[in-house]
Amino acid sequence: MEFTQKFAEYKKIADESIAKFLPRPQPGFEVLAEAMEYALLGGGKRIRPVLLLAVCDMCGGDLNLAGPAAAAIEMVHAYSLVHDDLPAMDNDDFRRGRPTVHKVYGEDIAILAGDALLTRAFEVAAGIPNAEIAAKASLWLAQGAGCEGMVAGQVIDLQSEGKSGITYEHLRQMDLFKTGALIRTAGKLGGLAADASETQFKFIDQYCSALGLAFQIQDDILDVTGSEEFGKPIGSDAENGKATYVSVLGLEKAKDLTRQLTDTAVKALQQLPNGEFLKELALLLLHRKQ
Amino acid sequence: MEFTQKFAEYKKIADESIAKFLPRPQPGFEVLAEAMEYALLGGGKRIRPVLLLAVCDMCGGDLNLAGPAAAAIEMVHAYSLVHDDLPAMDNDDFRRGRPTVHKVYGEDIAILAGDALLTRAFEVAAGIPNAEIAAKASLWLAQGAGCEGMVAGQVIDLQSEGKSGITYEHLRQMDLFKTGALIRTAGKLGGLAADASETQFKFIDQYCSALGLAFQIQDDILDVTGSEEFGKPIGSDAENGKATYVSVLGLEKAKDLTRQLTDTAVKALQQLPNGEFLKELALLLLHRKQ
Repeated sequence: MEFTQKFAEYKKIADESIAKFLPRPQPGFEVLAEAMEYALLGGGKRIRPVLLLAVCDMCGGDLNLAGPAAAAIEMVHAYSLVHDDLPAMDNDDFRRGRPTVHKVYGEDIAILAGDALLTRAFEVAAGIPNAEIAAKASLWLAQGAGCEGMVAGQVIDLQSEGKSGITYEHLRQMDLFKTGALIRTAGKLGGLAADASETQFKFIDQYCSALGLAFQIQDDILDVTGSEEFGKPIGSDAENGKATYVSVLGLEKAKDLTRQLTDTAVKALQQLPNGEFLKELALLLLHRKQ
Repeated sequence: MEFTQKFAEYKKIADESIAKFLPRPQPGFEVLAEAMEYALLGGGKRIRPVLLLAVCDMCGGDLNLAGPAAAAIEMVHAYSLVHDDLPAMDNDDFRRGRPTVHKVYGEDIAILAGDALLTRAFEVAAGIPNAEIAAKASLWLAQGAGCEGMVAGQVIDLQSEGKSGITYEHLRQMDLFKTGALIRTAGKLGGLAADASETQFKFIDQYCSALGLAFQIQDDILDVTGSEEFGKPIGSDAENGKATYVSVLGLEKAKDLTRQLTDTAVKALQQLPNGEFLKELALLLLHRKQ
C-alpha cells in the first residue's frame, strides 16, 4: 500500500479511537466535553498516534489493541497545547488558524479542559482490557508526559525565555524532554501493543529520538521560512525573544542537522522489519511545509 | 489502639509514601519538583489517603500495598487545589495560611506543577507492582478525578458563580462530583488494596458518599462560623457571591443535615467489620473546627 494511503488509514484509526473515547456532553457541564472536543478535533496532524500505530503495525501487532493508546497519546498532546497556549504561558490566541481554547471558552474552562484531557488519557490507557498492557501503557505515558518528561521540558522552555547565550546543547536538552519524551513514548506504546522484543524496542527508540529532534528543528526552520497560512505566524519565535535552532546554529547548519537526524532515524529502521512506512514518514517530516 | 494514635499512624504512612514518590529536583528544572513539594507538604489534613488506608486496614489489607495509592490520591487532591487557586479560577492568594503556589512560583509554574502532580499520581498508581491492581487503581483514579468526576464538579462550580436561585439539589449534584468523587475513589482504592468483596465495596461506598457530602456542608458551615487562623478567611464564600449549603438551607438546617449524613455513614459501617476508626473519623469531621 502506498504511503499516503497508509497514513490516511492510520489517521482514520486514530481519529475513530479519539472520537470513541471522548466523553459525551453531560447535562450541567456540557461545556467541558465541548471544550475537550474542540481541543482534539482542530485538524492536528496526528503524528504521535500515527507513529504509534505504524510502529505497532511494523512489529506485527494488532491495530485494534493499539487504538486506545493512540487516542490516549493524542489526548496528552492536546492537553499540553491547551495549557501551553494560556495567557500565563505562551499567550497564543490562535492555533492551526483557529482561536485557542481559552479564547473560545475562557481561561478557567481551558485549564479544566486540559486537566480533563490529561486525566481522560489515563482513563483510556488504564482501561485497556489486558491488565499488563494497561498498567505499562499508563506508566510509560505518565513517565513521558510528567515531571521528568514533557512537563520538565515546558519548565526548561519557560526558564530559557529572554535569556541570552542559549546553546545548541541547551535547546537539545529542552526538546529531548519537551517534544522528544512524548514522541518516544508513542514508539514505546506501539511496541508494547505489538509485544515487541527488547532489540526492537531499542531501534524503535533510536528512530523516535532522532525523529523527535528533527521534527523540532524543522519547526524552528519553518518558523523562519514557513507560510503563515498554516496557523503560526512567521517569525513568531524571534518576536517572542525565543532562542531557536536557527538563531543558535544558523539556517544552513540547522537544515544540515535535520538531514543528519533523518538519516540516523532511517538507519535505525534498517534493523527492523517492514520499516518502509516509517522511513517515508521521517522523509515527509523533513520535507513538510507546516 | 486509640483513634488519635491510629490517625497519626495512617498519616505517617501517607506522608512517607508521598515523600517517597515525590520527584527529586533535577538540574535545569529544579523549580518544578520544588513547586510540587510546596503544594504537597503544606500541612494538609491528608483526609483522602488516611481514609484510603483506614478502609484497606478495616478490610484486612496490607498497608504497604496501599501506600502508592495513598500518595497518588493526595497528589490528585493537591493538583486540584493548585489549579483551583489560580487567578483564572478562584484567585486565592492564601491556602492553609501560606501563599498559594502561583503566588510563590508564578502562574506558569503553578499550572505546570499541577499538571505534573496529576501525571505523577498516575505514574505512582500505574507503577504498583501487581498489574491488575495497578491498572484498576489508575482507572478508578482517572474516573474519580476526570471529566465525569472531580473536574466536572469544578465546571459546575464555575458556572454556578454569581447565579441566583441555586438549590440544595444543585449544590449536592455539584459536590457529588467536586469532592464526593475523589473521596469515594479513596474508599474504592482502599478496598482494592485489600481485595474487598462486592458487599464490602457497596458499604464502603455508602460510607464515603455520606462522609464526602457531610464534609462539604461542614466546610460551608465553617466558612460562616470558623476561625481565620486556619487559612481561609471567614465569609469568603459570601464575598465571592457563592451559594453555599448555609445560604441555601440556613445554618441550622445545614447542621442538621451534616448530622444526618454522619449518621448514614456510621450506619453503613455497621455492615462492615472493625469500623470503629472510620466511625470516629466521621464524628471528627462533623466536629472539626478547620
